[in-house]
Amino acid sequence: MAGINRQIQLVELPKGKLSPTHFTLAEAPIPSASEGEVLLKTILISLDAANRAWMQGATYRDALESGQVMAGGGLAEVIESKAEGFAVGDLVFADTGWQEYIALPAKNLNSVPRLEPLSYLISVYGIAGLTAYFGLLEVGQPKAGETVVVSAAAGSVGSIVGQIAKLKGCRVIGIAGGAEKCQWLVDELGFDAAVDYKNEPVHKALKAACPEGIDVYFDNVGGDILEAALFRMNDMGRIACCGAVSQYDGDAPKHGPRGIPGLIVTKRLRVQGFIVSDFYAKRGEAMAELGKWVAEGKIKVQEDIIEGLENTPAALIGLLAGENRGKRMVRV
Amino acid sequence: MAGINRQIQLVELPKGKLSPTHFTLAEAPIPSASEGEVLLKTILISLDAANRAWMQGATYRDALESGQVMAGGGLAEVIESKAEGFAVGDLVFADTGWQEYIALPAKNLNSVPRLEPLSYLISVYGIAGLTAYFGLLEVGQPKAGETVVVSAAAGSVGSIVGQIAKLKGCRVIGIAGGAEKCQWLVDELGFDAAVDYKNEPVHKALKAACPEGIDVYFDNVGGDILEAALFRMNDMGRIACCGAVSQYDGDAPKHGPRGIPGLIVTKRLRVQGFIVSDFYAKRGEAMAELGKWVAEGKIKVQEDIIEGLENTPAALIGLLAGENRGKRMVRV
Repeated sequence: MAGINRQIQLVELPKGKLSPTHFTLAEAPIPSASEGEVLLKTILISLDAANRAWMQGATYRDALESGQVMAGGGLAEVIESKAEGFAVGDLVFADTGWQEYIALPAKNLNSVPRLEPLSYLISVYGIAGLTAYFGLLEVGQPKAGETVVVSAAAGSVGSIVGQIAKLKGCRVIGIAGGAEKCQWLVDELGFDAAVDYKNEPVHKALKAACPEGIDVYFDNVGGDILEAALFRMNDMGRIACCGAVSQYDGDAPKHGPRGIPGLIVTKRLRVQGFIVSDFYAKRGEAMAELGKWVAEGKIKVQEDIIEGLENTPAALIGLLAGENRGKRMVRV
Repeated sequence: MAGINRQIQLVELPKGKLSPTHFTLAEAPIPSASEGEVLLKTILISLDAANRAWMQGATYRDALESGQVMAGGGLAEVIESKAEGFAVGDLVFADTGWQEYIALPAKNLNSVPRLEPLSYLISVYGIAGLTAYFGLLEVGQPKAGETVVVSAAAGSVGSIVGQIAKLKGCRVIGIAGGAEKCQWLVDELGFDAAVDYKNEPVHKALKAACPEGIDVYFDNVGGDILEAALFRMNDMGRIACCGAVSQYDGDAPKHGPRGIPGLIVTKRLRVQGFIVSDFYAKRGEAMAELGKWVAEGKIKVQEDIIEGLENTPAALIGLLAGENRGKRMVRV
């Protein structure tokens, strides 16, 4: 297809903190779909802390390299199809990268239903909501009456984790940065308490907020907050390791939290990492259940939509600094 | 009962390394059994790295205190019974402490069958064998063809873990200190390879010994060796956290292994602590299966029996330094 494909390229991999100078806005021709491929037009780009982690080296995907289009997931529409099973107008969530157009083999694509608002396909029914759902229920396995703590609680995943845990009859404490976010967790999302890690000593505040200890800790941040939670865990507690945003934007951390493995042994903890895609076989039922809760008003969806592809780098940098509330995405 | 009860008391809690001066040999009267109690005569005292961990603070049991009889598990014979269900001559494994006699309430006691040699009730059918059995099979969950690594591999637990893993069709690598122990693991116990952590860089040696990565790591030591294993784990790998002997005999470690939680997330690891007593409901079937393997010559039992209660402190100190091969115990 003739025309220009605007894209954000990674100029160089960051050594310390990520900054706008690591990116550049470039133009390329719009690609064509080969046999078995579809041409996609990106509608919304999902911003995730993991985007920064991919710059640190190989993870569950290859490490990013300088010169490439910045990687990222996006909601996109099929505008040309040379693949069976996909028609123009179909929606997919795909590894679009930060660009307007991409041609991709159809065989790895999953179409998503067209619903309104479309942004829900990125937030509550997208990676964020599914990560919260599977991570809490399959990995954390909370039981009614237990205490659940979640970090980055005002973020896209954390805000849904806490609400699902409340639905399951748990006492829920969120850890977030700033009085305003903490107030919002309690007043708007129904958390039982919140700890403001920017203005309170976390060890002490967690102790006060969890007088009966922690049964499930959903960790989005790693580092000192993980350590503080570890020391408050109850016997047989579970830590769902979802991410380590405190450690992504800078040098690799020199060491891990104290108490490992000592506390894991004596408290018989289960500390388990997961990636949402490991659970995609159950995606349909998860989306159905999340949809029911949203329709019933039991889960409030918070989104933070930035306009314009050119603003994607700043939006990611801001996300790493914790400036968003709820799911941050870019409308291309 | 009239007579003298020799006992080893803890004079003071160690600040740094444990030494003989932390203990004293004392004499007390032999206690009597009250209603509901049995009077026990200790036959064999089990020495375990955990004995040292109990001096660091509260764990799954209260912290030890100076002045008390040193705590420890032992095989003992009932010599007087005021409790239903226990008769003179019955054998029990109990929290006897390091002493010749103790009167204990019968309700928490489990009798063990009288078999020969009695020491097997402390080694392969005792805490060591059951810890290896449950920790590997229930927590590590190895599958045939997977690579299993165990640290403190020449110790009481590790030597049995490795042999069970071989029985289950796994490739087994042991980490131990010294060429002699490593040779023994391979030549006598049938391990596929061994890493001598005292004479080889562990990261590099593990890489060479596990070209296909590690699926199950059974951790008895914590610290740098845990870190080295963590970096070699395969996706979906499991780490069974049994102990942290590298960290018991000295100050509490300042921090944990690098890669936590980053590697746990990206590799989707399950890191799980356990205590053997959590699995005691299944003790009967475990002992039956271990017994079958021993009878068939598929598990070789290695014991290291020290004579004389007065030698118990030195025996524990030596165990912490890694001087034993197989299960160390003291014949009282």
